[in-house]
Amino acid sequence: MESFTFYNPVKMIYGKGEISKIGEEISQHGINKVLLIAGGGSIRKNGVYEQTTKSLIANKIEWVESWGVKPNPDLVKVHEMVEFAKNEKVDAILAVGGGSVIDSAKAVAAGVVLDEDVWDLFENQQEVVKALPLFTVLTLSATGTEMDEFAVITNENENKKWGIYGRGLFPKVSIVDPSVQAKLPWFQTVNGAIDAFSHIMEQYFSGKSADTTMSLAESLMKSIIKATDKLQIDPNDYDARADLAWASSLALNGIIRTGTGLGDWATHGIEHGISAIKPDVSHGAGLGVIFPAWIEYIGSDDQEAFARWSKNVWNCDSLKDAIQAYRDKIMHWGHPISLYEIGVEDGDVESIVNAVMKKPLGRIKALTETDVRAILDIASRSNS
Amino acid sequence: MESFTFYNPVKMIYGKGEISKIGEEISQHGINKVLLIAGGGSIRKNGVYEQTTKSLIANKIEWVESWGVKPNPDLVKVHEMVEFAKNEKVDAILAVGGGSVIDSAKAVAAGVVLDEDVWDLFENQQEVVKALPLFTVLTLSATGTEMDEFAVITNENENKKWGIYGRGLFPKVSIVDPSVQAKLPWFQTVNGAIDAFSHIMEQYFSGKSADTTMSLAESLMKSIIKATDKLQIDPNDYDARADLAWASSLALNGIIRTGTGLGDWATHGIEHGISAIKPDVSHGAGLGVIFPAWIEYIGSDDQEAFARWSKNVWNCDSLKDAIQAYRDKIMHWGHPISLYEIGVEDGDVESIVNAVMKKPLGRIKALTETDVRAILDIASRSNS
Repeated sequence: MESFTFYNPVKMIYGKGEISKIGEEISQHGINKVLLIAGGGSIRKNGVYEQTTKSLIANKIEWVESWGVKPNPDLVKVHEMVEFAKNEKVDAILAVGGGSVIDSAKAVAAGVVLDEDVWDLFENQQEVVKALPLFTVLTLSATGTEMDEFAVITNENENKKWGIYGRGLFPKVSIVDPSVQAKLPWFQTVNGAIDAFSHIMEQYFSGKSADTTMSLAESLMKSIIKATDKLQIDPNDYDARADLAWASSLALNGIIRTGTGLGDWATHGIEHGISAIKPDVSHGAGLGVIFPAWIEYIGSDDQEAFARWSKNVWNCDSLKDAIQAYRDKIMHWGHPISLYEIGVEDGDVESIVNAVMKKPLGRIKALTETDVRAILDIASRSNS
Repeated sequence: MESFTFYNPVKMIYGKGEISKIGEEISQHGINKVLLIAGGGSIRKNGVYEQTTKSLIANKIEWVESWGVKPNPDLVKVHEMVEFAKNEKVDAILAVGGGSVIDSAKAVAAGVVLDEDVWDLFENQQEVVKALPLFTVLTLSATGTEMDEFAVITNENENKKWGIYGRGLFPKVSIVDPSVQAKLPWFQTVNGAIDAFSHIMEQYFSGKSADTTMSLAESLMKSIIKATDKLQIDPNDYDARADLAWASSLALNGIIRTGTGLGDWATHGIEHGISAIKPDVSHGAGLGVIFPAWIEYIGSDDQEAFARWSKNVWNCDSLKDAIQAYRDKIMHWGHPISLYEIGVEDGDVESIVNAVMKKPLGRIKALTETDVRAILDIASRSNS
């Protein structure tokens, strides 16, 4: 087991009807005015906006709103919101939405307290310690950002989908009402499941050994599979929604990184390259295509983590069979398993490789350009 | 899944040689003087005292010391330390030792900021919000107190072994160097393992269903068994020490309580009654005797949690077989499985029942005096 530090001060509130607590939680931090950040408007349809604002009013919290954060959130919108938050002199940020909304809110919270451009934080990769307090109401479980200290933003002008990290980015309080996710399109539920599953694998395949942590990771992976299978049959299964949601939060809150090092993250690097070039590719779909290809390229039966994964997650005797079981599961959920299916064509490979190679990639194996091409090649011909 | 709030702000630092960070961590909280609390002196032999005080000196932190906290720590000693801490005007408490030392330190930290007697907190059962900052260096993994908001103290004059809880009791930072536990007597290692295992079961057998959480609990139980088995063969197996230590911390940090309610805790109530009467009975030994008896009395194959436990932890098809496997494991580790073996005789039952019945007991099934007698009866004749 590697030495580690675990620290996660996010207060998580889970359950049906719990969104009504948001005002009181914000108020307990002595906050009077917030910037409410949201996406395309789905929170007006599922009742989340109403529950949130009712709670703000009941607790005498003033707010201003900024709408229109999109998937793969863009830096231009972040800049606009930073200015708005500065002008409105808000005390805190309240993100109401999915991972893109919360990641944008984190970048805004960090940007408001800076004189310089918030993108400098992405370029310099120093820990973000100072930021406005952040509160979140999550409407789509996937990225785990509601319980972590990371944020990923796309700088479309420079073809960079990059991240920041640091203590300052932990939300103070995050509320998750799994029942509001019952009306999500199936495709989005699966995206979320694959994203969370991928976060676990990035940390699990670290090349390090730590039985307690790896066993927890295996449990989370199996819970995600079980819950997603149940939701495919009944999207209103509350317990399955809650199990999937909680597993997604735990996937990236630091617990399953304890003692296994920092994780590999090459797959995320490649996927970020793809969606920097093809912003319409959803993160979950991209990961579902790239991760099996990465395992196929990197893994072998004589590496402990890959052998454990085959046996304990997929009940398979070989990695080859486990990868097949994994791809079968993704297909069974109706999701793509090849680059072709997500709209990436041969002609895109050059620009994807260029976008990907802007940053170092991978810790189990540091990937060269040749490696990335080989993985993309496997991903392009994946089929069952 | 039940609604829940999860909040745990303890910074955990794990690894070989990490104790040397304690001074810097304390210093980062702007603290100048601490009361160092310790037990019988083992930390002078295993190098922990030296590493700790060296680090305090290097970071210019003044300290005074209080030694002699014993297992099943007593209120008299807590009172003495509260007075000492007040007179010395310390800014924080530093516990260096096992669960008894840390629990005592929590009671002291809570007592120093009060005008009234700290025992009032135990009688009133209100959440402890205010306390001096607490830092810990753990030398024996068992109770999980290094990462939780609970403390248990024995009031010997009144035959009460009772607890307090609350946000104020979370340590700010806890450091665990698993390698210092390599020299522990085997009996204490097993005590710790059984204690941690029991904490998980108290929460697991809640009668509530939450797959993600219950799967994590099963992983932790299996990791504890695996690590303890390895340590029986090689007490110097660092990875096994670290796996056991980390599983013990996670057992009571709140994660495996999420969505399953508050847990049952009747077994702990009975064990506390036993050690209130027989202070020489170690907590782990008492739990190892009582828990299987409680399951035998309460459980059945048609209750989900008991069926899952049999299958997923012990790979057994019936609860009866799983209980046997559990007792066999405890015996294999050389630990007692009957009241007789821990020195409880027929004549003690009356006073134990009296001590136990001072508080309500159990949530899956609220235990009456008759139930407690029946469980003690099963525990008295347990053998393979």
